[in-house]
Amino acid sequence: MEKVVSDAVNAIRILSAESIQQANSGHPGLPMGAAPIAYTLWARHMHHNPKDPQWLNRDRFVLSAGHGSMLLYSLLHLFGYGLTKVDLMNFRQLKSKTPGHPEYGHTVGVETSTGPLGQGVANAVGFALAESMLAARYNKEDIRPIDHYTYCLCGDGCMMEGIEYEAASLAGTWGLGKLIVFYDSNGISIEGSTDIAFRDDVARRHEAQGWQVLTVDDGEDIEALDAAIVLAQKCTDKPSLIVVKTVIGYGSPKAGTAACHGAPLGDEGLAASKETFGWTAKPFEVPNDVARHYADCAAECAKAQADWNKVMKAYKAAYPDEYEELMQRKSGKLSRAIAEEKTLWKFKDGDSTRNTSGAILNKLADWLPELVGGSADLAPSNMTYLKNKGDYSKENTAGRNLHFGIREHAMAAITNGLYLHGGFAAFCATFFVFSDYMKNAMRMSALMNIPVTYVLTHDSIGVGEDGPTHQPVEQLVGLRSIPNLKVFRPADGKETAAAYISALTGKQPTAIVCSRQKLPLLSKSGPEALKGGYIVRESEKETPDVILIATGSEVSLCVDAAEALSAQKIDARVVSMPCIEVFEAQPKAYREQILPPEVRARVAVEAGSAYSWFKYVGLDGATVTMDTFGESAPADQLFEIYGFTAENVAKTAAKVYKAYKKSLQQ
Amino acid sequence: MEKVVSDAVNAIRILSAESIQQANSGHPGLPMGAAPIAYTLWARHMHHNPKDPQWLNRDRFVLSAGHGSMLLYSLLHLFGYGLTKVDLMNFRQLKSKTPGHPEYGHTVGVETSTGPLGQGVANAVGFALAESMLAARYNKEDIRPIDHYTYCLCGDGCMMEGIEYEAASLAGTWGLGKLIVFYDSNGISIEGSTDIAFRDDVARRHEAQGWQVLTVDDGEDIEALDAAIVLAQKCTDKPSLIVVKTVIGYGSPKAGTAACHGAPLGDEGLAASKETFGWTAKPFEVPNDVARHYADCAAECAKAQADWNKVMKAYKAAYPDEYEELMQRKSGKLSRAIAEEKTLWKFKDGDSTRNTSGAILNKLADWLPELVGGSADLAPSNMTYLKNKGDYSKENTAGRNLHFGIREHAMAAITNGLYLHGGFAAFCATFFVFSDYMKNAMRMSALMNIPVTYVLTHDSIGVGEDGPTHQPVEQLVGLRSIPNLKVFRPADGKETAAAYISALTGKQPTAIVCSRQKLPLLSKSGPEALKGGYIVRESEKETPDVILIATGSEVSLCVDAAEALSAQKIDARVVSMPCIEVFEAQPKAYREQILPPEVRARVAVEAGSAYSWFKYVGLDGATVTMDTFGESAPADQLFEIYGFTAENVAKTAAKVYKAYKKSLQQ
Repeated sequence: MEKVVSDAVNAIRILSAESIQQANSGHPGLPMGAAPIAYTLWARHMHHNPKDPQWLNRDRFVLSAGHGSMLLYSLLHLFGYGLTKVDLMNFRQLKSKTPGHPEYGHTVGVETSTGPLGQGVANAVGFALAESMLAARYNKEDIRPIDHYTYCLCGDGCMMEGIEYEAASLAGTWGLGKLIVFYDSNGISIEGSTDIAFRDDVARRHEAQGWQVLTVDDGEDIEALDAAIVLAQKCTDKPSLIVVKTVIGYGSPKAGTAACHGAPLGDEGLAASKETFGWTAKPFEVPNDVARHYADCAAECAKAQADWNKVMKAYKAAYPDEYEELMQRKSGKLSRAIAEEKTLWKFKDGDSTRNTSGAILNKLADWLPELVGGSADLAPSNMTYLKNKGDYSKENTAGRNLHFGIREHAMAAITNGLYLHGGFAAFCATFFVFSDYMKNAMRMSALMNIPVTYVLTHDSIGVGEDGPTHQPVEQLVGLRSIPNLKVFRPADGKETAAAYISALTGKQPTAIVCSRQKLPLLSKSGPEALKGGYIVRESEKETPDVILIATGSEVSLCVDAAEALSAQKIDARVVSMPCIEVFEAQPKAYREQILPPEVRARVAVEAGSAYSWFKYVGLDGATVTMDTFGESAPADQLFEIYGFTAENVAKTAAKVYKAYKKSLQQ
Repeated sequence: MEKVVSDAVNAIRILSAESIQQANSGHPGLPMGAAPIAYTLWARHMHHNPKDPQWLNRDRFVLSAGHGSMLLYSLLHLFGYGLTKVDLMNFRQLKSKTPGHPEYGHTVGVETSTGPLGQGVANAVGFALAESMLAARYNKEDIRPIDHYTYCLCGDGCMMEGIEYEAASLAGTWGLGKLIVFYDSNGISIEGSTDIAFRDDVARRHEAQGWQVLTVDDGEDIEALDAAIVLAQKCTDKPSLIVVKTVIGYGSPKAGTAACHGAPLGDEGLAASKETFGWTAKPFEVPNDVARHYADCAAECAKAQADWNKVMKAYKAAYPDEYEELMQRKSGKLSRAIAEEKTLWKFKDGDSTRNTSGAILNKLADWLPELVGGSADLAPSNMTYLKNKGDYSKENTAGRNLHFGIREHAMAAITNGLYLHGGFAAFCATFFVFSDYMKNAMRMSALMNIPVTYVLTHDSIGVGEDGPTHQPVEQLVGLRSIPNLKVFRPADGKETAAAYISALTGKQPTAIVCSRQKLPLLSKSGPEALKGGYIVRESEKETPDVILIATGSEVSLCVDAAEALSAQKIDARVVSMPCIEVFEAQPKAYREQILPPEVRARVAVEAGSAYSWFKYVGLDGATVTMDTFGESAPADQLFEIYGFTAENVAKTAAKVYKAYKKSLQQ
């Protein structure tokens, strides 16, 4: 190997180890073991341009083993993405550009946030899926504006996680030939040799899932890595897995042991590693020839963009409409102003919100070519099928309906990748209770703050006969407590429309939680729902005796309860609160107009955990909520026995009102 | 095939279809397609005794595809487990013994609750693991008290879920030869042919995971099924997968289509199915010869228990100590009264609760032979390694440390199975934030109400440099809102001891949420923590001006804040609330003694979502909580910038106190 090349590889190692030592925290094992993979890919194969990190047709790189973040930061530094020596020295420090795990939107060149293992592979499947869908729509016989690879680097941890298997299954089924995953197979995880917990034949398993599998027996052999990448690129009908046998912490005294996975090498270990590599540069410095070498590689890699610019010029001339649509989609802005569409707000009475959701989705899909999505094998129940939009498959990459199979976790992480690629408004769907299976991927949408839409139907004991395994209870507060995530639980079609408008025009992820059962159309609902909380039944007095707060299927119940209270001379206001997060973002004056602070007699009604509602009802109020598991029975019987009746709500409200009045008199 | 046999198979089908039709809800596809598998297994192979469903050495059967519940109910009815004709007629009705999905503890003969797909396979791995561990401890050269199979039936949905892959990997790695899984491969899921989403070679994949794979091409061929079961039983060093090609909804007009997966056949469809099978019995009746045949089979299957009883008599005579220990373990009661162990309560100052947790676990493991568990590859970080207790592996089934690998979801579901088998007190562990990955399996522990212990360390921004992907925020309220689950977040070693005592002596599942960082030993902590909430810093007056409520790492902070408030002449009480669920179970008088209703100036302090605390602080109080994601930096800096300082808590409390006092004067 040419010395500048081996020095270039070792620069990744040493910079990583130095940064980790400086931070006294981090994971040197992966960067040191996988440096040759990263070098070979980034320097010789990846089409990317550090001067334009947002280039639409760049090859994507996902570091699924996010704890190896210093590998990525070293690359971004060496290739000139703007990460400075000082940034490396501030690894894992407050407000630095180099946090412990890579963070999307925080560090230029990071395509997705990783850390929770396995999700990066699923994100990568989403990137490759996006590429194939855009290619199907925009590429022409003669000109191909979309034509790039998605590369991913994962480790043993990713391979053990079920989500990797789920994602690999979809990648194989979909035949994503432009997806190339490197498996950094070093045989070590935190508890020791992977042999104690993981004896799978990973190669054979991926072959069984429809992948091409290539093996590089010596992770130090750059030419072998190079050859494998070429073979992987050539296989266009299957995703490729390149199994690379590496040594964790290569070159350090603890190489090949778990001891160098997640702890700094120590000053002595670092010095010994430098000795091994004949590394004499000052800390955080790279020799001039290495720096020049990386600059040359970066320039070479960026040539692809210059070529692409020419392609796009021709494309614009030959296909101006497609060009414009593609640029519009790249911008991330919706291609049509949906909030002004009046037909979005028209619904018949007595429909389930899963149905109104389905009707809205279909209208939106007609208007927005960028809207794609699907369900975890529940489209006929979630009502998420987009009519006449085709089914995405290996044979039809133009289809806009995604069949994710029964793989919630991969579905959510793939949808994150699909959005992150650019060019899509993306949704995915399952039964609400099974949001549990994809909780952490939803959290990642929220952490990255990307507007992925989750359609979650069958939202309560309204599920009925399927019983407690299928009846959500704690999921509403579980999602509401995720920072950045908006959770809508619409009460009728109009509130469902508001939820979709908020979801698609906002910048955050949104969960839209829908009923299985039919619900009445509220007379007072409408665009006010875009404020998150509003009055659907006004009190007679300006200051009501009692306020009933509800969401979804419990709103109409509260309207009925208010009528019953009226007969008892108790003046009740009903507030529909389809989205707490949006309500909380309103000005204080608005919030206090809806929930006057002096009205302490408040009852929150929701067929979910009470934890969501103490914030509004305080110590003087009460909740009519679901704080046990449900059971298997027809839904109407369950609502009855668990107290979700106008009668019980009215009774509770009257009690609260009287007790509060009494407390004031004391 | 003998007519009585085909009638016996068809009885399962018809009873299932009739019950589903009667309920007008349910899933006929699986019971009709998989009836021959179930028949062959239950009637010819399974060692079980309907008269003693708790027999320790019975073969276990898990219906992982829980939506096919009527298959199991039909079997339980036909074999005489006590489910009556009326029970079948009440399928999916309120309070019936035949809920929509099988429920453990509710219906005799149901070994585990299933429905959330894939988890049943992992439960079955747990059963087989339990069998192998008990066998290692109790079996002797000459006498084998523990020697049974675990059978599991799963469908395409289970096979797509990542948890199945994770569980299969562990079963293969562990060489669980007594585990036999049937894959009801009908090629249909809700969205249509599985081909649209699932083109894996399932057989080859399992082979790559160390399984023996057998295939039965015709799911109607009872002799082929029989032969496959025999081969599976003979393979003792690998788990076996029997891939059975079946026809969903076999015999019904919609056979082979998604239409019969999850909807009743309709009256006509049911009639046509009866016609197909030449079925003339009255609804919910079985012909006499079929009933007799099942009675004969049941008697035959039960003979194994009679043989075993003889074995146990010999065992008791030859190995009285082991016999007694085994019987003790079967009883489910702890083998030693740990609450009275004084050494459990001794800790040095300034230790992390993950460390005190590790110390306690090791003491408990010395005392309790039934205690086993492990981590998802984080034992050195979770501090869950049981010293000198051996590592469980294919080669050492006597080991009590389980290496689950990086597979949180399967870990939790396997631990559920391990407990359900009987004979164990079981725990599992990971970083708290990754409880997300196993959330639904934890929910299943709670739904089944079984005392599995979850050790969840690295509980807040105290994680520090690993950053927001690794810092829990919403997980505390996420778990607290699960019905039946106890969530302890101990403030020091003594509270950690209380958590373990509560966990191991209680009947519910418990999550023990521990710090990464060191915490001071509180002077007032101790067995009072067993009440869930108690006073750790008394106010000077009987009725304090303000109450500070905290958990875990924030308790000592509040004690400091109370001192600071004292200097401002504000009299503060500090309540440590390690477990809200246990506190809520105390008598009202106790709760009001700790939190006097008249003291409305309250501040809750916890480095987690505020949603947990509004219940106690109401509209007059405040929270010092974590309602955004954290970031990557040293932990002490994070606590500072997010307001977890005695100074900020004191300031907040002073403000709350003054505002409340003012409101009283108005």
